[in-house]
Amino acid sequence: MKKSLILISSLCLFGFSAMATGIPDGMGVLPTTVPVPADNPMSEAKVELGKKLYFEPALSRSGQFSCNSCHNLGTWGVDNQKFSIGHKWKRGGRNAPTTLNSAFWSKQFWDGRAPLLEDQAKGPPLNPVEMATVSEKEAVARLKEAGYGPLFNDVFGKNSLTYDNMAKAIAAFERTLLTPNAPFDKFVRGEGDISKAAKRGMQKVADIGCTSCHSGPLFTNNEFVNFNYGEDTGVKSVTGKDEDDHLFRVQSWRNVAMTAPYFHDGSAATLDEAVQTMAKVQLGTKLSKKDVADIVAFLETLTGEAPEVAFPVLPRPAGHALNWRD
Amino acid sequence: MKKSLILISSLCLFGFSAMATGIPDGMGVLPTTVPVPADNPMSEAKVELGKKLYFEPALSRSGQFSCNSCHNLGTWGVDNQKFSIGHKWKRGGRNAPTTLNSAFWSKQFWDGRAPLLEDQAKGPPLNPVEMATVSEKEAVARLKEAGYGPLFNDVFGKNSLTYDNMAKAIAAFERTLLTPNAPFDKFVRGEGDISKAAKRGMQKVADIGCTSCHSGPLFTNNEFVNFNYGEDTGVKSVTGKDEDDHLFRVQSWRNVAMTAPYFHDGSAATLDEAVQTMAKVQLGTKLSKKDVADIVAFLETLTGEAPEVAFPVLPRPAGHALNWRD
Repeated sequence: MKKSLILISSLCLFGFSAMATGIPDGMGVLPTTVPVPADNPMSEAKVELGKKLYFEPALSRSGQFSCNSCHNLGTWGVDNQKFSIGHKWKRGGRNAPTTLNSAFWSKQFWDGRAPLLEDQAKGPPLNPVEMATVSEKEAVARLKEAGYGPLFNDVFGKNSLTYDNMAKAIAAFERTLLTPNAPFDKFVRGEGDISKAAKRGMQKVADIGCTSCHSGPLFTNNEFVNFNYGEDTGVKSVTGKDEDDHLFRVQSWRNVAMTAPYFHDGSAATLDEAVQTMAKVQLGTKLSKKDVADIVAFLETLTGEAPEVAFPVLPRPAGHALNWRD
Repeated sequence: MKKSLILISSLCLFGFSAMATGIPDGMGVLPTTVPVPADNPMSEAKVELGKKLYFEPALSRSGQFSCNSCHNLGTWGVDNQKFSIGHKWKRGGRNAPTTLNSAFWSKQFWDGRAPLLEDQAKGPPLNPVEMATVSEKEAVARLKEAGYGPLFNDVFGKNSLTYDNMAKAIAAFERTLLTPNAPFDKFVRGEGDISKAAKRGMQKVADIGCTSCHSGPLFTNNEFVNFNYGEDTGVKSVTGKDEDDHLFRVQSWRNVAMTAPYFHDGSAATLDEAVQTMAKVQLGTKLSKKDVADIVAFLETLTGEAPEVAFPVLPRPAGHALNWRD
């Protein structure tokens, strides 16, 4: 990680974990605070601006797509597509990961090519198979024409409508997209129970070794691990290094039941299939149907409360439309 | 109008209009209550269900488009496109009208082919250039798979997940999409002023006869009027009758400054151009630049407060994605 992070980690969680018995090592309640980069402090106005930008179709060449088109906050930060639909109905080559809790990841994208949300947010608007805006300059010009100038200036100071600040605001908004109070979290805090099947699943994932990577309260070690499955070479496709061959981010299990289909290539249509495949490919284990059902029952307890978002009204010029293309 | 309406009209408005002087006849504050069909009474649960359905991409074959894709509540119920982008990037042949205040219109669509919002809402999901779902049956099956059954049953009673009830819920939600407290409304109520230019424009539209059609507090007489402009024959394209040739709905001026481009064919890119063209084609009047500017200044005072909408979390099955196609 090149940029310094102020990690406001909720260490008090470990206090909570003691409240329920039989929780495997490391598992715990979703943290309530997120790492924030020193050069992009949070503020209410910045989050509100970032929310507008997250829902802003002016960031796409066509005027049709916003961040929310593929990372739909109505459907757990994903679109449930194998590969998302982009500009002129093109499709990308990787499954869109959720933006929920993404503030916790050490790096962004399946291949980790963006260190921070600030870096990630600069990608899709310019990606020709996603939003297909021609250049940073064009995106900024469109936002200016829409009337974003004063909103940026209120947050970042004079003449601050830049592509970098756009990304900063979006990242600040995304840092609010947490999903607390999953049944598992309530169970850990001693506020509720989970089913016997879920408890068996919880123990099973520890016993067979899933939690060596899907570890901690986030159920990811935030590392990049070899998943030799399909032609996509993952991190190597970015670095070109053989040592990075087929490395992919270890995805969090948080809300995993709501983010089908699964894997970087969206090839697993169901959570059952994803669990079975991971056990086989990563651990050399053939799970029984009952074990799969138990593990899935446990994973379903990790669905938290979706963030409440007031749908933003976007700035627009009076009396004329923005200049959409294609 | 075939179906009976309970018209709960805000007649008390006329009391308010007396508070400001110099308001041309008929102009007044936006009503605060809307006509509601006897067979689809409003309820909080129905509105909430309708909101989910309004934002529901499961109603499109691809899983990409919802009502909100083209009637975006973040941008005044429109997408600011000449013709909206639909399934596989097809485009329709008419400009998408706003859903805001649409509860007040006597009939829906540019050609009035849907008597009520309930009828209108049944069109786009099945339209091959819009959401392209194959059949009502498929739409209902998809909603059922998503988990809407219990939500419908709470609102409409047992086994009530039907396409008709889907449309009823969407219509109920749309009846909440009002935009009160425009600067003009505040002016009429004696709570604020509008510019001198706007006042001149207000008088001008009455003097030259715009308000013979764009009349009353809604600035539409809710009629279908000849607008012989382009090849689209309007109502005749539905009825086949010569007497209906080139009849189009008289659009409301409410929020018109935010819904560019203009006309059924989206051919007027700016409000200035739309005003100039309407005066010429409909009234045989060539307006001066100053008159156009005054009228536009007046029209801009008709932009109200956009409705506050909490973005809904949509029902989804755990552990698998809905079966999107194409």
